[in-house]
Amino acid sequence: MMIIMRTSATKAEVEHVIARVKSFELDAHLSDGAERTVIGVVGDGRPVDKNLFIRLPGVDNILPISKPYKLASREFYPQDSLVPIGDHLVGNGSRIIIGGPCAVESREQLLESAKAVKDAGAHALRGGAFKPRTSPYSFQGLGEEGLKLLAEARELTGLPIVTEIISPELVPLVAEYADVLQIGARNMQNYSLLKAAGLSKRTVLLKRGMSATINDFLMAAEYILSKGNQNVILCERGIRTFETATRNTTDINAIPVLKLLTHLPIMLDPSHSTGDWRLVSALARSGIAAGADGLVIEVHPDPANALSDGAQSLKPKRFAELVNQANAIADVLKAANISSTPVQ
Amino acid sequence: MMIIMRTSATKAEVEHVIARVKSFELDAHLSDGAERTVIGVVGDGRPVDKNLFIRLPGVDNILPISKPYKLASREFYPQDSLVPIGDHLVGNGSRIIIGGPCAVESREQLLESAKAVKDAGAHALRGGAFKPRTSPYSFQGLGEEGLKLLAEARELTGLPIVTEIISPELVPLVAEYADVLQIGARNMQNYSLLKAAGLSKRTVLLKRGMSATINDFLMAAEYILSKGNQNVILCERGIRTFETATRNTTDINAIPVLKLLTHLPIMLDPSHSTGDWRLVSALARSGIAAGADGLVIEVHPDPANALSDGAQSLKPKRFAELVNQANAIADVLKAANISSTPVQ
Amino acid sequence: MMIIMRTSATKAEVEHVIARVKSFELDAHLSDGAERTVIGVVGDGRPVDKNLFIRLPGVDNILPISKPYKLASREFYPQDSLVPIGDHLVGNGSRIIIGGPCAVESREQLLESAKAVKDAGAHALRGGAFKPRTSPYSFQGLGEEGLKLLAEARELTGLPIVTEIISPELVPLVAEYADVLQIGARNMQNYSLLKAAGLSKRTVLLKRGMSATINDFLMAAEYILSKGNQNVILCERGIRTFETATRNTTDINAIPVLKLLTHLPIMLDPSHSTGDWRLVSALARSGIAAGADGLVIEVHPDPANALSDGAQSLKPKRFAELVNQANAIADVLKAANISSTPVQ
Amino acid sequence: MMIIMRTSATKAEVEHVIARVKSFELDAHLSDGAERTVIGVVGDGRPVDKNLFIRLPGVDNILPISKPYKLASREFYPQDSLVPIGDHLVGNGSRIIIGGPCAVESREQLLESAKAVKDAGAHALRGGAFKPRTSPYSFQGLGEEGLKLLAEARELTGLPIVTEIISPELVPLVAEYADVLQIGARNMQNYSLLKAAGLSKRTVLLKRGMSATINDFLMAAEYILSKGNQNVILCERGIRTFETATRNTTDINAIPVLKLLTHLPIMLDPSHSTGDWRLVSALARSGIAAGADGLVIEVHPDPANALSDGAQSLKPKRFAELVNQANAIADVLKAANISSTPVQ
Repeated sequence: MMIIMRTSATKAEVEHVIARVKSFELDAHLSDGAERTVIGVVGDGRPVDKNLFIRLPGVDNILPISKPYKLASREFYPQDSLVPIGDHLVGNGSRIIIGGPCAVESREQLLESAKAVKDAGAHALRGGAFKPRTSPYSFQGLGEEGLKLLAEARELTGLPIVTEIISPELVPLVAEYADVLQIGARNMQNYSLLKAAGLSKRTVLLKRGMSATINDFLMAAEYILSKGNQNVILCERGIRTFETATRNTTDINAIPVLKLLTHLPIMLDPSHSTGDWRLVSALARSGIAAGADGLVIEVHPDPANALSDGAQSLKPKRFAELVNQANAIADVLKAANISSTPVQ
Repeated sequence: MMIIMRTSATKAEVEHVIARVKSFELDAHLSDGAERTVIGVVGDGRPVDKNLFIRLPGVDNILPISKPYKLASREFYPQDSLVPIGDHLVGNGSRIIIGGPCAVESREQLLESAKAVKDAGAHALRGGAFKPRTSPYSFQGLGEEGLKLLAEARELTGLPIVTEIISPELVPLVAEYADVLQIGARNMQNYSLLKAAGLSKRTVLLKRGMSATINDFLMAAEYILSKGNQNVILCERGIRTFETATRNTTDINAIPVLKLLTHLPIMLDPSHSTGDWRLVSALARSGIAAGADGLVIEVHPDPANALSDGAQSLKPKRFAELVNQANAIADVLKAANISSTPVQ
Repeated sequence: MMIIMRTSATKAEVEHVIARVKSFELDAHLSDGAERTVIGVVGDGRPVDKNLFIRLPGVDNILPISKPYKLASREFYPQDSLVPIGDHLVGNGSRIIIGGPCAVESREQLLESAKAVKDAGAHALRGGAFKPRTSPYSFQGLGEEGLKLLAEARELTGLPIVTEIISPELVPLVAEYADVLQIGARNMQNYSLLKAAGLSKRTVLLKRGMSATINDFLMAAEYILSKGNQNVILCERGIRTFETATRNTTDINAIPVLKLLTHLPIMLDPSHSTGDWRLVSALARSGIAAGADGLVIEVHPDPANALSDGAQSLKPKRFAELVNQANAIADVLKAANISSTPVQ
Repeated sequence: MMIIMRTSATKAEVEHVIARVKSFELDAHLSDGAERTVIGVVGDGRPVDKNLFIRLPGVDNILPISKPYKLASREFYPQDSLVPIGDHLVGNGSRIIIGGPCAVESREQLLESAKAVKDAGAHALRGGAFKPRTSPYSFQGLGEEGLKLLAEARELTGLPIVTEIISPELVPLVAEYADVLQIGARNMQNYSLLKAAGLSKRTVLLKRGMSATINDFLMAAEYILSKGNQNVILCERGIRTFETATRNTTDINAIPVLKLLTHLPIMLDPSHSTGDWRLVSALARSGIAAGADGLVIEVHPDPANALSDGAQSLKPKRFAELVNQANAIADVLKAANISSTPVQ
């Protein structure tokens, strides 16, 4: 951490700051410039809270140097983590595809979707049983009944299942049925939920919050990791910007940036990141080309009658085309020996 | 709702859409333009889900006309709601001031803060016992011990207390101690928590999410209202934008906009909306001038040693000045008979 | 255009609005809902200014239906436009690559860059002679001397040249030397410059403004087209969002969205859209995979000593790899017969 | 400037960076932490370009310490600048109000507006003769004819006039007629225009760009100042964010932040920052309460028939009320001796 003193700071103020730095058993390194003094705070690698210094007289600003996350950082753990979804491992350029409806609506709808996902050659089935909806008047999910249908679909197709958790006290119940616990964008900073997921033994698919910086995103992952669960998959699903032509703005930059910063696998959800089925295939291709370890895609046998997210769901035929396109691009990357992590 | 057909839509596609509209017992009104057809969907006032139509052949876009919230809307309930905080009523230009530390840290710190808040002439005491922190390694609050200290501070000063809820299962416990349940920005779309707050009998102080539109914000309030709790106070606390000179961007426009759209009271939290104690008084003045019904201010007896949010906390002396400034501006508005709701 | 009346609007107010609609020789279609009246304004396809109605008594809101641009719209001109850069045509999935330094710094630097661009198999050379710099104290470009060096580089390599215009009165001079006139992000709404470019006969490479919506972007193109210059290439170069991990956020969604809305070709500039050379190749691949008609890449023989944009410039060797990767992905799309315009 | 080395940086890489620092006649101060090395670059106060170091091997990141602007900074010039508009001086809490129509449309409209502005007790008249419009099909202004009408209005009312410049070659013409040259948001980074304004002797009213950070804004002011024109007034007019309930988001934080960073006066334009006449008075009050040195307000005798910005223009009666409200709040600040610059 660097403590930037004001140009008007007195010698006494500088000394007071240094004394405080030392009171926390940290070292202080002084840089006297023509205009101002900068004090480097040197410790043992643990993050130091800037609030400890920001209010001292003569202090202008504090610049952090160390990252605030540790278990999630690639500096701490340089190898790509490989995280299980059923028998598949996600990470290191794996290209695992999860497909399925936004919500489990009925036995027929789910089993038809599951069959389509399986037939297209995808690797896991998604479907929400507990739904976080913007409106209290919208369909809120089938609850445990939905979980049972998901289990039945797994039985039939062999596909591992991914489903959302929305409240800490429901985690044990959902974990009984699901292979992967999804934490949605709106709950990315629901710390009670992150802790509960961290105490579970299931793989967690953590979606980026709509206005979460990459730093916030990795701090949310750190919550789960710090509770002892190492199986975390990050998922970019679009951020909120001024652009209204699409539901969200896909932060495609985030994929190679995350590859540089963390060892955790990264997937892309182009259904949510665009909100428009017409754009989903183009974005799926672009995600794989950018180095994503996999995709999460909304698939529905009859989108015009879906109870949620119909506008962004693919019909089974288009989904099968998308899987083929993603595989073709993945093959190019593999053939050319292009790493999912940018070369530095 | 208006269904905008593509310029290339056929007559059969238009008729298919109309048939579907009628299948939901809604009326369809046709506008044939030179370029394209627009179909107005007319119902009984309940919001209609655009997903029911967006995927039909020939449909280009759907424009909502009705608001998706009802109980929160001023059209539904034209009078300003007056919501209790202890013996005070918030709303209709009330100018109620809540002060106190970000987190309850110790008996001494809290009681000293409470005394300062009382002496400054403010109306309620805030302090977090359960803290949602970005880092799992930061101080997470004193828990129930903190609630007990808050109750003690109320006993001593007579100030009603405001404290945060972060998990549905803790709501009954917190509601035993607190006068007002605060829902923080990160939990604004934690629907399990909103429902739990809606089932409680306590006043809820709902903070706007960092990337929540005003529409999202009112939908979150609708969740609470729809569960039977009418005592909701909205709180603008800054949104996330590209500007990094301040921690957040105060959306001051939101205050008069909300006054037009909803009957619920609106407060401003300039401590979070700026993240910098030097700016808090200017923003407090501007919030009152814009028509806010009150303020939420972080106050700490020793900000340089605060366990959280030291950078944005005011010392007691500055807080007392702020209260005076806010009152002086409120008096001007009253003397000039300026309504907190913009005249149309 | 749809005029949404307030729920409280009187019959007389509705009639007044209808009379005003008719006074502009437009038709009015009425939809009476349970809650409110909506008046559809039907004309001959020209955009109608919403300001003509927004202030009438009883009017709540105005929703546009028609697009405000015409010449740029795919509805007006359904075929992909093919726009020349030297002997190459850009559009319809062309994959043309423009490379070169941010600024022309010296004869040696430019010729070395030009040779690298040529050797890598790219199609055109970029380089700024007049530079719009954030700081008045930064290098502002070599001016006409830079243009002469660009012409010399073209002479040597056969590569057509692309260079920026920053002021209307310089357009004729720059057009004497350059094959393509670039309009930078900061000037996207410099209407005097857009008009001057529209009166030129050169191809225009129009970069998206940092906070321009897709609609604003197409309106800027419309300015150029409306002055008689049909040769406009759009270029996505990142938008400004809350995320600070990269210099800008690549709006990759914009590529397929623009393909749906306009016939104009679309390129991606991943150097500016990321600001970090390490990310450029991943983003270049993702742009081509999403359907971009080409790429604009900053290349410098010695980035560590570049006078501008060193952080995002590629060395010649990496640029050659990027061209190969882009071509490999373009070949996959071609082989699989994937259109650059999303199938609807 | 601080150069942050990677955790993996070798001793040789650190030494190479230090050598390069010294090659520019700058000093290097070393901080060796447990995790990484940080090199402080110490010079004579001039900004150092981070591009000179970012590409060196082993470098992770560069953090600037000094501000990139100098003439605009309060550290350079601690007293509030007082900038003339006619006989008035803007700055140090002046509360000068500029009113008038968006565009000069006709003699009658302008003179009626001017009379209303004068009668309300405001201090200057605004009106655009050259208009930067989003659409090429919208009214583009009366040009020099508009300037002549403005001069006539000044003659009649004694009000100094403020009008926009949109192209460098028109600056001398506009400067002949106008007291104040306005640079609009879309041209804030039109550097050719900034330079031309800097060479003029007229006061410049510089509006903040829609996506300009406060740092960008001050750099744009620096362009004008660096050309020798010290008379620059900054104007906050709303930024672009995800919120669509208002046309722009008023960055009210910017007012006290700018007061801390610069000696230049700051005005607020609530007409553009909201885009909705119903909100303008509330925002005007809030701007004055936050410390703005003045206001820019759109006034039109007949907004329903305005050729531009009708939705956000006030009628004369409301404008007069606004002036009274602003004065009442300004009086409170004065009586309580509250400085427009935040106390630190």
